[in-house]
Amino acid sequence: MISATPIPATARPLRLAGWTTGMQRSVLRQMLAVVSQPGILSFAGGLPAPDLFPTVDYSAAMARVLQSDASALQYGPPFRPLKRHIVALMAQRGVACSEEQIFLTTGAQQALDVLSRLLLDEGGQVMLEELVYTGIRQVVAPCRAEILSIPTDLETGIDVDAVIDYLETGARPAFLYAIPDAHNPLGVSIAEDKRRRLVEIAAAYGLPIIEDDPYGFLSYDGHSLPPIRAFGEANVFYVGSFSKILAPALRLGWLVAPEELAAKLTVIKEAGDLESSALTQRAVAAYLDAGHLPAHLARLREEYGRRRDTMLAAMARHFPSGVTWTRPRGGMFVWVTLPERVDSTALLETAVERERVAFIPGHAFAGPGVRAGNYMRLNFSNCCLADIEEGIGRLGRVLEAI
Amino acid sequence: MISATPIPATARPLRLAGWTTGMQRSVLRQMLAVVSQPGILSFAGGLPAPDLFPTVDYSAAMARVLQSDASALQYGPPFRPLKRHIVALMAQRGVACSEEQIFLTTGAQQALDVLSRLLLDEGGQVMLEELVYTGIRQVVAPCRAEILSIPTDLETGIDVDAVIDYLETGARPAFLYAIPDAHNPLGVSIAEDKRRRLVEIAAAYGLPIIEDDPYGFLSYDGHSLPPIRAFGEANVFYVGSFSKILAPALRLGWLVAPEELAAKLTVIKEAGDLESSALTQRAVAAYLDAGHLPAHLARLREEYGRRRDTMLAAMARHFPSGVTWTRPRGGMFVWVTLPERVDSTALLETAVERERVAFIPGHAFAGPGVRAGNYMRLNFSNCCLADIEEGIGRLGRVLEAI
Repeated sequence: MISATPIPATARPLRLAGWTTGMQRSVLRQMLAVVSQPGILSFAGGLPAPDLFPTVDYSAAMARVLQSDASALQYGPPFRPLKRHIVALMAQRGVACSEEQIFLTTGAQQALDVLSRLLLDEGGQVMLEELVYTGIRQVVAPCRAEILSIPTDLETGIDVDAVIDYLETGARPAFLYAIPDAHNPLGVSIAEDKRRRLVEIAAAYGLPIIEDDPYGFLSYDGHSLPPIRAFGEANVFYVGSFSKILAPALRLGWLVAPEELAAKLTVIKEAGDLESSALTQRAVAAYLDAGHLPAHLARLREEYGRRRDTMLAAMARHFPSGVTWTRPRGGMFVWVTLPERVDSTALLETAVERERVAFIPGHAFAGPGVRAGNYMRLNFSNCCLADIEEGIGRLGRVLEAI
Repeated sequence: MISATPIPATARPLRLAGWTTGMQRSVLRQMLAVVSQPGILSFAGGLPAPDLFPTVDYSAAMARVLQSDASALQYGPPFRPLKRHIVALMAQRGVACSEEQIFLTTGAQQALDVLSRLLLDEGGQVMLEELVYTGIRQVVAPCRAEILSIPTDLETGIDVDAVIDYLETGARPAFLYAIPDAHNPLGVSIAEDKRRRLVEIAAAYGLPIIEDDPYGFLSYDGHSLPPIRAFGEANVFYVGSFSKILAPALRLGWLVAPEELAAKLTVIKEAGDLESSALTQRAVAAYLDAGHLPAHLARLREEYGRRRDTMLAAMARHFPSGVTWTRPRGGMFVWVTLPERVDSTALLETAVERERVAFIPGHAFAGPGVRAGNYMRLNFSNCCLADIEEGIGRLGRVLEAI
């Protein structure tokens, strides 16, 4: 095919996909940049404690793999020994599944993205809690999804009746997103009866539930409920992650999904990043082979539990009446409810300027149209006990002045 | 909100997103599974040579990072020292860019995915060569893109006149995907005049070009052309990768993109996997700090060049007349044209059964409606010289019998 058509001399601008016009940077990530100044005592981030990373043991595992496994740096299929370890981890959480149901992902975030591509059509509906992890909103944004907002009870978790009401009035959401334990940002764990009702709903309405469980292994009161997936299998997709129990920089997570969807999940994942690092898969498996995890988890639970208790005790001492908060059984966050008249975004400015202490205002987690002006999220996992004491004291002075 | 509505007892099946109905596993990946049997001499894969991985130096770099950098296992922003190294690498390819224009991705595949989300609307058009890397087809599949097929000249690369013809007859593709050097699967590099015309077209028509350059540093004839991005900046998105020059398991690639798109690219990337591994970013930067790359690249070029030359010489000796092939200046693939009547998929069966030798039939790379029955792709990067000699001899016997 030969063409004599000359190229026009006038330049035309770049045209982006339509959905990108309304896209917004995560409010959360923007705020984190603002409060990450030296000298500020920050309860803002959602980071695990770097002083608790298993650096030495992981480094040794990595060195062993690089010395002994010639395929560690190559492309390769998902590493089955790692899947075996994950099956065993799931069993500890009360979830029975097979290696064929484990699907490895580049962190839990990729699992959310892959599931959204599997389930959500352009312009489709999704059910999200009014206040919830912002990463799930970013995942559904390219499909311009219609968000069906679900309230959350701060004692028992997601409002199951609201879910049913939507379904009974004709809603056909692509999925419901739920965090079973130590909800981000609310800190709440879903009550057992609600877990049972959710699996009934998933089966009865054909409603896929994406169960995002990064904190399930981090429970500090000596007992924890099994995740939703343990109560029923039909239409429940469990998402797990090594980010909070080993380290975020591994970028390794997993899905528990029906075996018959494996081929489709594989194609979607390949489109995203071909495969998760063969090296990291092997290094994590080698770390787990060496049997380090149980002691490491015990240490995390003990230390994070102490930090939570320290924060809760300090809040009880320093926060004025009229301020309430959740008492999380695990995870990394406490959710604070301020008097309705308070605007926590304005309060953050005061807190940073006057007392050099930071938190995340509730509205960072709010869906469109959701009022969340009088809340704040506090992180307790990434501060030492002394900083927690000091920071909560400072925050108490800020709150006394409202 | 309280509801007395009971949950219906009849189960409803899972409903998947509409596009997944027609989705197909990559033919290529399926074939690779078939031919990966022991005893088969395979020219099928697209793998770099594991014996040439910089395992010892990378392992040392990884150990240094884990010993010295407390933030290596944490979440973190893109690692600027790595961006600096990439700016220097790009300069070696003749591309002037700043750190602010470098965007780190989890392998080049993620860069393609992120760009597709940035540029492509549901049901939009994309321009792909008739025969091209299958990963780009997987990327655009969820948007049910209309593919505008562009022929490729085996001596000079992509048919630029065909691109203009489409544009002049009203096509408005979201992007054109191009591989500047050592095309996968065709082995061809785009001629210099075509590179110049492509940047003119990109600017004049507002046509984004995604320039995927995994093999640009692997050129074996002592000279190589700069990539398209070096000839013009407007609407050209350069995609680079460490997979072929260091190792695939790093899952680390990069984009060179306009700085004003950084915020949007960041949001899209965060939705996909939050961030690329902070540990890997630091380990690769430490490897590059140590100055290992130039000698490593020289070794890759020498050894891969020898493998290519060995394959081409063996083909000249063993292949019958009527069979022709490209002479790639770099990369990993030779593209073989068989007589029109030959069906290379059937031929693969014969080759595997009779001679225990494998290749990828051309149709694995073909777009919908594209006839590519009489081609085969041969990989030369992942076989030792003796295996290349032996395997091409076997393939010659298969071809003599057609």
